[in-house]
Amino acid sequence: MLIGKAYRSGGLVRWCGVQPLACLFTSSSNMAKSKFEYVRNFETDDTCLRNCYIVVRLDGRNFHRFAEQHRFTKPNDNRALGLMSRSARSVMEELEDIVIAYGQSDEFSFVFKRTSTWFKRRASKIMTHVASQFSSSFVFYWKEFFGEQPLLYPPSFDGRVVLYPSNRNLKDYLSWRQADCHINNLYNTVFWTLVQKGGLTTAQAEDRLKGTLAADKNEILFSEFDINYNNESDLHKKGTTLIWEKRDEIVTKRMKLPNEEEKDVAVTRSRRRVEAYHCDIIGDQFWEEHPDILEDNSC
Amino acid sequence: MLIGKAYRSGGLVRWCGVQPLACLFTSSSNMAKSKFEYVRNFETDDTCLRNCYIVVRLDGRNFHRFAEQHRFTKPNDNRALGLMSRSARSVMEELEDIVIAYGQSDEFSFVFKRTSTWFKRRASKIMTHVASQFSSSFVFYWKEFFGEQPLLYPPSFDGRVVLYPSNRNLKDYLSWRQADCHINNLYNTVFWTLVQKGGLTTAQAEDRLKGTLAADKNEILFSEFDINYNNESDLHKKGTTLIWEKRDEIVTKRMKLPNEEEKDVAVTRSRRRVEAYHCDIIGDQFWEEHPDILEDNSC
Amino acid sequence: MLIGKAYRSGGLVRWCGVQPLACLFTSSSNMAKSKFEYVRNFETDDTCLRNCYIVVRLDGRNFHRFAEQHRFTKPNDNRALGLMSRSARSVMEELEDIVIAYGQSDEFSFVFKRTSTWFKRRASKIMTHVASQFSSSFVFYWKEFFGEQPLLYPPSFDGRVVLYPSNRNLKDYLSWRQADCHINNLYNTVFWTLVQKGGLTTAQAEDRLKGTLAADKNEILFSEFDINYNNESDLHKKGTTLIWEKRDEIVTKRMKLPNEEEKDVAVTRSRRRVEAYHCDIIGDQFWEEHPDILEDNSC
Amino acid sequence: MLIGKAYRSGGLVRWCGVQPLACLFTSSSNMAKSKFEYVRNFETDDTCLRNCYIVVRLDGRNFHRFAEQHRFTKPNDNRALGLMSRSARSVMEELEDIVIAYGQSDEFSFVFKRTSTWFKRRASKIMTHVASQFSSSFVFYWKEFFGEQPLLYPPSFDGRVVLYPSNRNLKDYLSWRQADCHINNLYNTVFWTLVQKGGLTTAQAEDRLKGTLAADKNEILFSEFDINYNNESDLHKKGTTLIWEKRDEIVTKRMKLPNEEEKDVAVTRSRRRVEAYHCDIIGDQFWEEHPDILEDNSC
Repeated sequence: MLIGKAYRSGGLVRWCGVQPLACLFTSSSNMAKSKFEYVRNFETDDTCLRNCYIVVRLDGRNFHRFAEQHRFTKPNDNRALGLMSRSARSVMEELEDIVIAYGQSDEFSFVFKRTSTWFKRRASKIMTHVASQFSSSFVFYWKEFFGEQPLLYPPSFDGRVVLYPSNRNLKDYLSWRQADCHINNLYNTVFWTLVQKGGLTTAQAEDRLKGTLAADKNEILFSEFDINYNNESDLHKKGTTLIWEKRDEIVTKRMKLPNEEEKDVAVTRSRRRVEAYHCDIIGDQFWEEHPDILEDNSC
Repeated sequence: MLIGKAYRSGGLVRWCGVQPLACLFTSSSNMAKSKFEYVRNFETDDTCLRNCYIVVRLDGRNFHRFAEQHRFTKPNDNRALGLMSRSARSVMEELEDIVIAYGQSDEFSFVFKRTSTWFKRRASKIMTHVASQFSSSFVFYWKEFFGEQPLLYPPSFDGRVVLYPSNRNLKDYLSWRQADCHINNLYNTVFWTLVQKGGLTTAQAEDRLKGTLAADKNEILFSEFDINYNNESDLHKKGTTLIWEKRDEIVTKRMKLPNEEEKDVAVTRSRRRVEAYHCDIIGDQFWEEHPDILEDNSC
Repeated sequence: MLIGKAYRSGGLVRWCGVQPLACLFTSSSNMAKSKFEYVRNFETDDTCLRNCYIVVRLDGRNFHRFAEQHRFTKPNDNRALGLMSRSARSVMEELEDIVIAYGQSDEFSFVFKRTSTWFKRRASKIMTHVASQFSSSFVFYWKEFFGEQPLLYPPSFDGRVVLYPSNRNLKDYLSWRQADCHINNLYNTVFWTLVQKGGLTTAQAEDRLKGTLAADKNEILFSEFDINYNNESDLHKKGTTLIWEKRDEIVTKRMKLPNEEEKDVAVTRSRRRVEAYHCDIIGDQFWEEHPDILEDNSC
Repeated sequence: MLIGKAYRSGGLVRWCGVQPLACLFTSSSNMAKSKFEYVRNFETDDTCLRNCYIVVRLDGRNFHRFAEQHRFTKPNDNRALGLMSRSARSVMEELEDIVIAYGQSDEFSFVFKRTSTWFKRRASKIMTHVASQFSSSFVFYWKEFFGEQPLLYPPSFDGRVVLYPSNRNLKDYLSWRQADCHINNLYNTVFWTLVQKGGLTTAQAEDRLKGTLAADKNEILFSEFDINYNNESDLHKKGTTLIWEKRDEIVTKRMKLPNEEEKDVAVTRSRRRVEAYHCDIIGDQFWEEHPDILEDNSC
């Protein structure tokens, strides 16, 4: 009989702590498990309201420090921005139902379509998966953008979920982020120009910019440094918008001819892939040119 | 005047889409931003109920496939388990207020103390940060455990938050996970022994184990393969428990003597660090030996 | 000195329980209160997502028993239906921002406009207030509908909140309730006709109707009892829809003439009041005739 | 055939609006209903976290106005307080699992036991049912307390749900409400004494009390009006606490004797009923005397 054998052989299960549970665990571990299983009922349902866009926004944690330690160029580091976009693309390719993503600085927003039933619309699953895929990609693709410069420690991002019931609300969300990009980039461009070319200390530059409007900042750049802000990189001024696009690709397929011979034939295949834009998404033009991104409001 | 200059120079701001917003953006981008800022009000407050333990559990996404593609050994891959623990340690060291973490297979649970006010107890921030830090660490430390074997793609984990109001509920949660570890490991140990040593196909092994109890599985291992399950590795049978412990360290400090000379002196310093255990946490002994992990129920 | 006096006069504060708190409560009750005030932080924010219709639906609790005990006529009691509508009207008149309400049987749904900021959109406040106002009105207006027949005990209703992001979703919600009304009323009409006019027992009537379609039920009424269901009361077939309507009223106002005399003058005044409809709200006509109920989807 | 008949008889279903749905509703109303039924999925799960006390607090809406219009006596109206308690008792008797209720002024709190599974712990159902039963009872029992003085309009109460994980938290919640009762009652007692006996206007009384501590208020009552606050009614100073208590009742039962005769016998029967206390619940004594109210913290 098993139990006899078990004890003869010194006790089949030796727990480092508790003796009384030993028998329980040899003969009825399933029972033990089910005794504890009531704890599952403490989970709460956090299903996202139907027919709303689900937006997940990630923000870098302590990226000021991270940028310092990895010697990011000021005011923008194209390697870092490239890595952010590469990671966002990885998220879009791995997760279903993201129709548009927008990023700037150390943040990225992902928009799931209104009718998505991915992960049963469970907010916690959706946002943790986005945060996880983005973060592992950031480390994974580091070398593609920073080459031999080592990543000193694993960075992290926090996230949140916000729901938007209408197309107008969603566009306004994205406009809010792009307006934020514009304001910050203009400020940073002037600030670092004053420091790097104007010889000001950072404190002096801060002082100089206190209370200035956008127009004043443009003027400083133009009159003092001969820089037309308008000519600055769209990547920096407008951020990065990622969408799915269908592209025709010509691929070679091996086909069998009637006479049983085989032959390579060029075939046109339509493929969906993630494309990046650095353009205005506040106005109507972008949305008119890409009418498939948003769903019909009348549903 | 700026506006004149601006237009003279070709238009200070050229948006790829919309013209009417141009002026808005040169002279009053802050106003534009504030016009969209109402979208912030769509964020909902997901503060965790006070005086409850906050548990974040991460689970690997498609880890069956991930294990295949990275040729994990069966039934347990110690490199992978080591990397999981290393990543969990990184989470504990980076985030505040985690008092205990428990992991097995491709999952890890993190317990924040009842009184934590970290991130203002916002569930979304807490769980995304845990998922992010864990995932970036998993890629970052890959080489430490897998050496030259390359990581083929960035893996991901999803997470959830569960609240437990009492010490009993929390212990039962951890017991539930450890009982799960035990059941799965016993099954997997027998299954892969039947395949690897017994020459069965995986389908035959599955058949053979259908309907067997824990006792039956122990018996198969013992009588057919001369394996005492009890002697198997505690890492596999009990999983990994991480807690904070104070350790005395002897460090050398340079001190100034009264006669102005300097001298190296050995000093004992108490330091908190994360320690790993592979022992039973279902019974009382573990908790009695570490009375500081849980807070008093009477609060 | 107060404390002296206090004790001389037998102890200013005599708590039936605890002595030590006495001093605390004479001299610093505010302090005592603030010591406990931390419990407020356990309240959670349940703000309804912006830009969604807020629907509160009430359902009678144990109304089967209530109907029996108050001898409601079968299949419909017009006194009870009238009282339900009267109570719903009281809710609409007391609470702000309800644009439409729909009721049938022992249930009533109230729709708050998408842009409502009433009660800061706090779900708990909104639904409890609706439930409370409805219930107190039900008892208050009982006599208007039941005359001398006494109300035997205070009835109760439970409620819930549901959010609908689009006009389509909201209309479909109301259609769902009206379709439910139709199905139940047709069933009940045939059922009670079989019992009251056909002489069947309730068990026999139930049996007879098992598996029948709407067409079959119409046929039973028509061929066996010469009843055209179509001619039945719209109140029963379609339920009650309450909306706000502007009505011109002629009121008498006392006005001062140029010669200082006063005179009564008939003045037309536009007043909003709640109007009841018993008509189809599933099709488009109702909505086309009342275009002001719903807000524009494009916002 | 039905359809023929239907149309012959003028169309079986005549919708006041839409024609096309007519057929749909005669032959397949269930289908129509199920087409709309997707709207149920917009309901969200608001289950209360397990193992926490569920507190529902009701507050009178515009009770200042209500008190004026119904000429409540100042500073306390015993008829109104009696009616509040009567309504609360009605809630306790109708709803399951309320272990204690506490009321003062125009508010009442109801505490459901930690392990309650009533209404599947759905917050919305629980709080609306409490609000509804309380409100209908308030109107229903009005006459018992106000006699011939008529209720002028149906009053309403709003409610909220708060969860408390531990006995300490729950007691602190109740202490918070009782401390609030004490502070308000002391203030109101002095205020209305100054007005009613001291001849001050309400503005003068308010001025007089600005910045005074509890001790000052006691002193005003004692030295100027010879009132020892301590001797004031406990109902006003401590509010009303309702709990369940077992009482032995002697009832008469008709029993059959061995000789087949029948006889009335006095039998002691234990019955649970709601009892009211007006005593301190901040200190330990009340809880020690009623150890059954709260559940064990160790669960």
